[in-house]
Amino acid sequence: MPSPRKAPQSLQNEMDEVLNAVNKTIAKILPETDLPEDRLYEAMRYGTLNGGKRLRPFLVIQSANLFNVNPRRSRRVAAALEFVHCYSLIHDDLPAMDDSDTRRGKPSTHKAFDNATAILAGDALLALAFEILADPETHEDPHVRTELISKLARAAGGHGLCGGQILDLIGEKEEFDVGTISRLQRMKTGGLMAFACEAGAILGKTDGPHRKALCNYAHDLGLAFQVTDDVLDVEADPDTTGKPANQDALAGKSTFVSTMGKDAAKMRAEMLVAQATRHLQMFGSRADTLKELAEYVLMRRA
Amino acid sequence: MPSPRKAPQSLQNEMDEVLNAVNKTIAKILPETDLPEDRLYEAMRYGTLNGGKRLRPFLVIQSANLFNVNPRRSRRVAAALEFVHCYSLIHDDLPAMDDSDTRRGKPSTHKAFDNATAILAGDALLALAFEILADPETHEDPHVRTELISKLARAAGGHGLCGGQILDLIGEKEEFDVGTISRLQRMKTGGLMAFACEAGAILGKTDGPHRKALCNYAHDLGLAFQVTDDVLDVEADPDTTGKPANQDALAGKSTFVSTMGKDAAKMRAEMLVAQATRHLQMFGSRADTLKELAEYVLMRRA
Repeated sequence: MPSPRKAPQSLQNEMDEVLNAVNKTIAKILPETDLPEDRLYEAMRYGTLNGGKRLRPFLVIQSANLFNVNPRRSRRVAAALEFVHCYSLIHDDLPAMDDSDTRRGKPSTHKAFDNATAILAGDALLALAFEILADPETHEDPHVRTELISKLARAAGGHGLCGGQILDLIGEKEEFDVGTISRLQRMKTGGLMAFACEAGAILGKTDGPHRKALCNYAHDLGLAFQVTDDVLDVEADPDTTGKPANQDALAGKSTFVSTMGKDAAKMRAEMLVAQATRHLQMFGSRADTLKELAEYVLMRRA
Repeated sequence: MPSPRKAPQSLQNEMDEVLNAVNKTIAKILPETDLPEDRLYEAMRYGTLNGGKRLRPFLVIQSANLFNVNPRRSRRVAAALEFVHCYSLIHDDLPAMDDSDTRRGKPSTHKAFDNATAILAGDALLALAFEILADPETHEDPHVRTELISKLARAAGGHGLCGGQILDLIGEKEEFDVGTISRLQRMKTGGLMAFACEAGAILGKTDGPHRKALCNYAHDLGLAFQVTDDVLDVEADPDTTGKPANQDALAGKSTFVSTMGKDAAKMRAEMLVAQATRHLQMFGSRADTLKELAEYVLMRRA
């Protein structure tokens, strides 16, 4: 069982490299304009270029690297996925939803702009994700493009992100068991993580055991990520996480910590990470970065 | 110049037929479930099966008929487009946006459910539209599917619906000239209308003058539709339209009526409809239904 430790410098360097590359791609897709509707694009830029860790883009690019995919392609898929992730954060923060005034230590998009602009910026980011994936620049084979779109749309829709978020809201009033919380988190977090890893295999036109292994890795990693998120919510420093502590408990939400206790949750996360890395054995040392990333998820503080 | 007259019974019959067929397709795509997140799907059904005229689906199916497209295919594209249209209505009605308590004479989705559920139902409908288009059941050729996705994503995004809506909100505070109002309406209404007609040609794998003609028809029709919408806002009976009168003026919005006056707006709509039907000449009598529809847009009362 791996124990939490500091991320090796090489992992940090690789993550920084992806972060810079994806930020450049996003900025290129969302240029400043002098159109009367530029306020919308300003909010889209604000909601996407505000200091995220780019964990999902990192997963896309690292998974795609296993199949020697041209990075120009994987960066576009990474940006599209990050647009979906950021749109969901913008909408989740709205007063009607989680009512969060801050995100990553800065005013959330609806505080920096207004509710209407935040709703529309989220909507436009979601549509833009599919526009990017449908573009031949993302991949010359339209089979690859439609498969990416189909998988991302599922992960984003009623059986994915949106379904998970409605369960999250229902969970503020009803108590869930661990099974329902796991399902909720698979929809809310796991779906986009799984897409990130599977996208690498889709871009590499690989089916079969390698693709399956990446999906299994992503599934365990996503759940481990959410369990540590719940732990961070109760024990982390708001200055590090950039958001207030104990938000879940205050909202009366059922979480892994509220249901199974903090220590058991930490053990569960460790077990999931160990399981995640085992799925990658068939890739040998080529998947070392993805294995290191799984351990990083355990020891993160934000 | 065509003068407003009652829709011929044959047109009405054809519109009813499409309405029933598309409602069936939508109900099949959004079945009732006993999943814990069914509340989301209930809101999605409420927001899509609430008595719309299905004008956009009608345009998809009639345009596709010109190229002998299998109706099973055009109905799926029609449903996807209607999901995008309905998502935009659900979000537009929110308190943060147009704050409309009613839609088609019934409580709007956020009144029948709540704001969070309405936001998520809209989001999920938008994602679902692309999921449907990406599915091989919509068309076996992935080039056709990616082209449909690309065009619909553009029509829905920052340079389409979302951009038009933000301009609409800016227009509550700033006065716009006719040029800016036309641009706003092209983004807000014209884009989806143009997609509806072009989708028929894309499904029929037709490029060149026939496709171009349909796009031009759609452009003029969309603008005529919006001009008559502005006229209806000031002169129609709320019992017929299902929404309160004079909403635009009360919100301080620049409209075709506020800018050019009601009579000039009516003349503009007639001119646009005449122009729209002229674009269809190359199709001969096969396009009679689409021509009749353009005249119907002029004389509608809701």
